[in-house]
Amino acid sequence: MASVDKETLQTLKDIANKLRIHSINSTTAAGTGHPTSCCSIAEVMSVLFFNTMRYSIQEPRGANNDRFVLSKGHAAPILYAAWAEAGLLKTDDLLNLRKLSCDLEGHPTPRLNFVDVATGSLGQGLSCAAGMAYTGKHFDKGDYRVYCVIGDGESAEGSIWEAMAFASYYKLDNLVAIFDVNRLGQSEPTSLQHDVNTYQKRAEAFGWHTVVVDGHDVEALCKAFHDASTVKGKPTCLVAKTYKGKGIPGIEDAENWHGKPLGAKSSDALATITGLIKNNGPHGLPIQSPSTELSEAVVDTILLSEAPSYKMGEKVATRAAYGTALVKIGKSSQRVVAMDGDTKNSTFAIKFKDAFPDRFIECFIAEQNLVGVGIGCGTRNRCVPFISTFACFLTRAFDQIRMGAISQTNANFVGSHSGVSIGEDGPSQMALEDLSMFRSIPGSTVFYPSDAVSAERAIELAANTKGICFVRTSPADELAGSGINVRVIDPFTLKPLDATTIINSAKECGGKIITIEDHYPEGGLGEAVCGAVAEEYRHLSEEARLYERYRVVERVTNSYRNTA
Amino acid sequence: MASVDKETLQTLKDIANKLRIHSINSTTAAGTGHPTSCCSIAEVMSVLFFNTMRYSIQEPRGANNDRFVLSKGHAAPILYAAWAEAGLLKTDDLLNLRKLSCDLEGHPTPRLNFVDVATGSLGQGLSCAAGMAYTGKHFDKGDYRVYCVIGDGESAEGSIWEAMAFASYYKLDNLVAIFDVNRLGQSEPTSLQHDVNTYQKRAEAFGWHTVVVDGHDVEALCKAFHDASTVKGKPTCLVAKTYKGKGIPGIEDAENWHGKPLGAKSSDALATITGLIKNNGPHGLPIQSPSTELSEAVVDTILLSEAPSYKMGEKVATRAAYGTALVKIGKSSQRVVAMDGDTKNSTFAIKFKDAFPDRFIECFIAEQNLVGVGIGCGTRNRCVPFISTFACFLTRAFDQIRMGAISQTNANFVGSHSGVSIGEDGPSQMALEDLSMFRSIPGSTVFYPSDAVSAERAIELAANTKGICFVRTSPADELAGSGINVRVIDPFTLKPLDATTIINSAKECGGKIITIEDHYPEGGLGEAVCGAVAEEYRHLSEEARLYERYRVVERVTNSYRNTA
Repeated sequence: MASVDKETLQTLKDIANKLRIHSINSTTAAGTGHPTSCCSIAEVMSVLFFNTMRYSIQEPRGANNDRFVLSKGHAAPILYAAWAEAGLLKTDDLLNLRKLSCDLEGHPTPRLNFVDVATGSLGQGLSCAAGMAYTGKHFDKGDYRVYCVIGDGESAEGSIWEAMAFASYYKLDNLVAIFDVNRLGQSEPTSLQHDVNTYQKRAEAFGWHTVVVDGHDVEALCKAFHDASTVKGKPTCLVAKTYKGKGIPGIEDAENWHGKPLGAKSSDALATITGLIKNNGPHGLPIQSPSTELSEAVVDTILLSEAPSYKMGEKVATRAAYGTALVKIGKSSQRVVAMDGDTKNSTFAIKFKDAFPDRFIECFIAEQNLVGVGIGCGTRNRCVPFISTFACFLTRAFDQIRMGAISQTNANFVGSHSGVSIGEDGPSQMALEDLSMFRSIPGSTVFYPSDAVSAERAIELAANTKGICFVRTSPADELAGSGINVRVIDPFTLKPLDATTIINSAKECGGKIITIEDHYPEGGLGEAVCGAVAEEYRHLSEEARLYERYRVVERVTNSYRNTA
Repeated sequence: MASVDKETLQTLKDIANKLRIHSINSTTAAGTGHPTSCCSIAEVMSVLFFNTMRYSIQEPRGANNDRFVLSKGHAAPILYAAWAEAGLLKTDDLLNLRKLSCDLEGHPTPRLNFVDVATGSLGQGLSCAAGMAYTGKHFDKGDYRVYCVIGDGESAEGSIWEAMAFASYYKLDNLVAIFDVNRLGQSEPTSLQHDVNTYQKRAEAFGWHTVVVDGHDVEALCKAFHDASTVKGKPTCLVAKTYKGKGIPGIEDAENWHGKPLGAKSSDALATITGLIKNNGPHGLPIQSPSTELSEAVVDTILLSEAPSYKMGEKVATRAAYGTALVKIGKSSQRVVAMDGDTKNSTFAIKFKDAFPDRFIECFIAEQNLVGVGIGCGTRNRCVPFISTFACFLTRAFDQIRMGAISQTNANFVGSHSGVSIGEDGPSQMALEDLSMFRSIPGSTVFYPSDAVSAERAIELAANTKGICFVRTSPADELAGSGINVRVIDPFTLKPLDATTIINSAKECGGKIITIEDHYPEGGLGEAVCGAVAEEYRHLSEEARLYERYRVVERVTNSYRNTA
């Protein structure tokens, strides 16, 4: 709010200290965690949750709520504490932090209804927040705002600067980033320590309205957040000068206290901090409600608007079929959106951009942010994102994809130019590890369509499949017949793999299985088949087992090296 | 040089146009490639190779030569052209560009003796260049300088800004970055187009001495590169305003010409550009020789200074043994260096920092740059780098590691906190796909030591093993006995895997193989064993084959999901 009365300011200070106390208690109970990383943002959290943000405690994922992303996920205890002070969680439950039986994990995940994206691998929150802000401004056309708290240590991650460039380019004035400049990393001070001016210069150079603020001054924070809401055409960055372990005697601003509960030192700390609290009763601060009335997302089945239609024998690249299918599902659902990393004319995502320019996001050559933005757009089912680039460049965002699975995202990935089939561009452009990478993602579905018809159906299925989907596309001439007299199985999906069909076919074909793939041998189709056959064995009847003993899995794998 | 006479300037202009002609000819002959991306840097290349850089044509990898990294690897044809004009390559050979029979690939790789690191996945060159500059300044204490040409499109990659922050923090005044601001990306203009002032602001905010220069003015470039050599305590960034396709009528500064040879349009272009050349004969410009006399790296065997010594039954975390072993090999070879991403107190790399502070590089929380710097330090065998962080965070640099293999790097990676054994920190901190990722890297060696002694030996072996090595470390209590009566095989390396021992043991143990692993099932030990057994079959004698038909591979895999 613009101006805040003295009483409210005192209450916000009290809440900040209560949040410190909860953070110290929960990490002490757990015997593990990051209390000092919580204490540096106590005032920021207090002001955001009890003065600035508009949300419904009953519906933490409500379509109209302001959104909050804790990019420095290791400060999870104070996030949980804020929701406890807001009334969503019981204060006693905070003491179950990090227990296997409790969803209050060491780092936040969407198993908690007030978390949109999992954080904990640093530097990823802002890209997701930017995707959420882009969705709010351009797709939902709502007035909800997105707040993202970033650690100073994690601001060394390039993904932060990819997101900074993205957010200013798209004028996301509904996005606020708070840099928690608490000076200390895990193993030593950060490279910039308390040089808040350099943080400001960098954020300004990346196109953000940037303000340096005392991160422990609740009045200054209330004003800064209010001012941010009046800035048009630019996202706002608050560079908050703070102290790690703020309020803890002997530990505030001290090294070697990262990720350590206070243990025996906690009683002194609690006494000191409690002594600062004027009113230890219920704070009684009202929480602002959202003003607009966007409706919740409806997750309906998404179908191709028209069935695939190709002439028999016609050679069509599966990547071209991707573009065609994307337009078709785009016609049947407004929630379908697409983003690409300056390869849209190669991946054929450009077909979607041409058909639905307002639902396409060019993310330029910044794959980590591309993936983070896509995951952000998909939160709360607001969008069904299709993220495309050369398949090999998705390795650039493996960590974001890995975290996406923990975020329970339904984002869909489409990788083109897979395998050595791309030829003369050379190994740097060839995806030969993409199937392995996506197979190793928990709950993923991995499609490898062999022609245009199956490619269109793969896209249709991906749009409706929970979890991360990957569709590997290729040029048209890849599947030339080998001339060998064999029964050919086109798996369509490598994960899940149809082991029964493979085993039954093997039984009928002399007990041999040959896999051919355009991928490194490790983690590809060959190993998937080996693994599936070995796994299947245990589920067969005794008779089948005896028979199965005569099966041998043999592999012929096109194992290309970078000499290809 | 400081001031350059008119005749030399004209010769540099002529060379720039000759480089354009070579680039157009070679890509036309190949029928594929990026001539327009070459033409924007013709003057930069001419001035660097024929006025600024000091090197020996006879020994392109000589220890004292200035180094050149073409981060925008798709401009490879003009790099090859520069070396042809310098006399290392025959001009005719340029016409074999992108042929399978020729090492002049679409993107540069170290198969060419004038290339230190492979490029082509964008945004990676500057980290490698920074590692080379750090090595020159702090390890070699030589006076060679490192030049890196970066595309404006690729400057959207966060890895560039990780490297920018790193280079200024370590005051790498022997490093020069040239931003080729040619305005156009692949599928549309870049986000900043020709806004060179914003590039300058960003580079300055990241601590670089930054100059905006007309990238087609050879005199301005000569002066700028000379001035850069006089700047102390800061790296220099040249923001070069250029035009994509510069010099090609109708194509200069035009969209939709990325990655397209000129074809029929080439003859007009060649005629126009040839018309600009005053002297089409040999240019006759002398190339400056290096001044210092560093000796070439001697690749000797690196041994533990003392053998591992632990008490029987003593529980020691393999990550602790990593720190111990690193210090031991550090004693036996000056070339051993280590770098970490602000986790050195967790990975135990801190033991090395304490023993050899001058050979440890803190790279802060920027894993892509951490890996790129390590690969850069390892070029020309100047160093044997050990790169450590939590194993799961190495996924952040999968693309850099993938390119590292193409770079023929011998960099060693050590990942701690693998598997669910880390417990309450949660899935974001758990490596459950690291073995799959590193197995899929061509030519890699994957170590999984089970105790402190094998961990020390793994580090010793890694230091002497060609190609990428990964050592997975874990806490001490991981390998608790299962109590089941089985023959236990400790594979030590997952890649290569000792298939013979596995198969022979299976024959002697009732034909069953059980794998236990702390990793997702895909691409881990289980699939590796399945694949190895299947592969092995084809190599057995007929008798063994009959016997082998009674073998069945069975798998029990601890397949943890993110519910862990």
